[in-house]
Amino acid sequence: MAEEVILLDFWPSLFGMRARIALREKGVEFDMREEDLKNKSPLLLKMNPVHKKIPVLIHNGKPICESLIMVQYIDETWGPESPLLPSDPHERARAKFWADYVDKKTYPALVTILLSMGEAKEAAKKEYIECLKVWEGEIGDKAYFGGERFGYTDVSLIPFYSWFDTLETLVNFSIREECPKLVAWAKRCLQRESVAKSLPDQYKLNDFILEFRKKLQPQ
Amino acid sequence: MAEEVILLDFWPSLFGMRARIALREKGVEFDMREEDLKNKSPLLLKMNPVHKKIPVLIHNGKPICESLIMVQYIDETWGPESPLLPSDPHERARAKFWADYVDKKTYPALVTILLSMGEAKEAAKKEYIECLKVWEGEIGDKAYFGGERFGYTDVSLIPFYSWFDTLETLVNFSIREECPKLVAWAKRCLQRESVAKSLPDQYKLNDFILEFRKKLQPQ
Repeated sequence: MAEEVILLDFWPSLFGMRARIALREKGVEFDMREEDLKNKSPLLLKMNPVHKKIPVLIHNGKPICESLIMVQYIDETWGPESPLLPSDPHERARAKFWADYVDKKTYPALVTILLSMGEAKEAAKKEYIECLKVWEGEIGDKAYFGGERFGYTDVSLIPFYSWFDTLETLVNFSIREECPKLVAWAKRCLQRESVAKSLPDQYKLNDFILEFRKKLQPQ
Repeated sequence: MAEEVILLDFWPSLFGMRARIALREKGVEFDMREEDLKNKSPLLLKMNPVHKKIPVLIHNGKPICESLIMVQYIDETWGPESPLLPSDPHERARAKFWADYVDKKTYPALVTILLSMGEAKEAAKKEYIECLKVWEGEIGDKAYFGGERFGYTDVSLIPFYSWFDTLETLVNFSIREECPKLVAWAKRCLQRESVAKSLPDQYKLNDFILEFRKKLQPQ
């Protein structure tokens, strides 16, 4: 029986991008279905009844929710010859730690910047920049976060690079100047077809983020 | 060489309890070192420089941080004959989803109740009760969240049961009456030596939580 792989997604979603990249790294053909988040499909509500959020991966009718869990599932299910997570338990834990750092610190810092104004914005900016500096220190002189191979932490963080560009103008911080190693890493990732095909057009994304911000902020 | 397993911990920590339970499930001897969170040890700061938080598992000198990652590490490293995570990728993803639901929904709901007053407390109470009802529905007539065997989701959630008792008085909600299946599950878990030895004395914990709440809330 042919495999059926469906990804319920929304094009600017940082979390959806992770799933797209992981599937493409593994050479898995999938049907990406764009969701209208104001009018969610019955399939989405059925497949993710708890959170009702994208992305959802549906593999032969069974749902997998939450992007990091999804990337781990993809890694365990397809292409064992090109693993995303290392086989050594300590190295695996390390890769998971950094992916978790994206969700626990980097993503909230980014959201806070989008939402905040005035003094709160200054505090958010400080936290965001500290976060970028942690990444700059962690990548150091490595090609990828796990060493020589593109892997789990890279998949987890690289979608955020597509948002950094717009945020740069909001926080007045040059990521190119301040975090050159992180930028070099991102450019290395972008040379991979899996990444280049999964990240949206930068101009379209800029417009989306600025529009989104306008809607969220008090007038 | 004998293995060295150290757990930097703090006795009422929900996350520390997870690590203790998983280590005991696997029969791993460990040295639990109580941290003074107002005066963190140089070892803690060295081993978890990013978050500076307990618990930290130190295995032969190498740190593993973040409790769910730690439980996965413990599962991969010791006792393959009694796995906590199922071997089927879809079942694994499901177990991880529910553990993630503890961290994303159950823990925040619990913290919000501790911190909130007045109207905010009512909203927090509603969210907390909804969360408990989700767990009640999910356990249903199963012995454990994964089926017949005590596993990863159980390890992730059971520490919270030790806090539910105190919260019951704060939200005026009888978990025994409203979520009998969840309570039966918790009692089943508490019969395991690994759990019984890892959860603190209920009276001591009650006092700690109420004291903690007093300090956090505006006078």
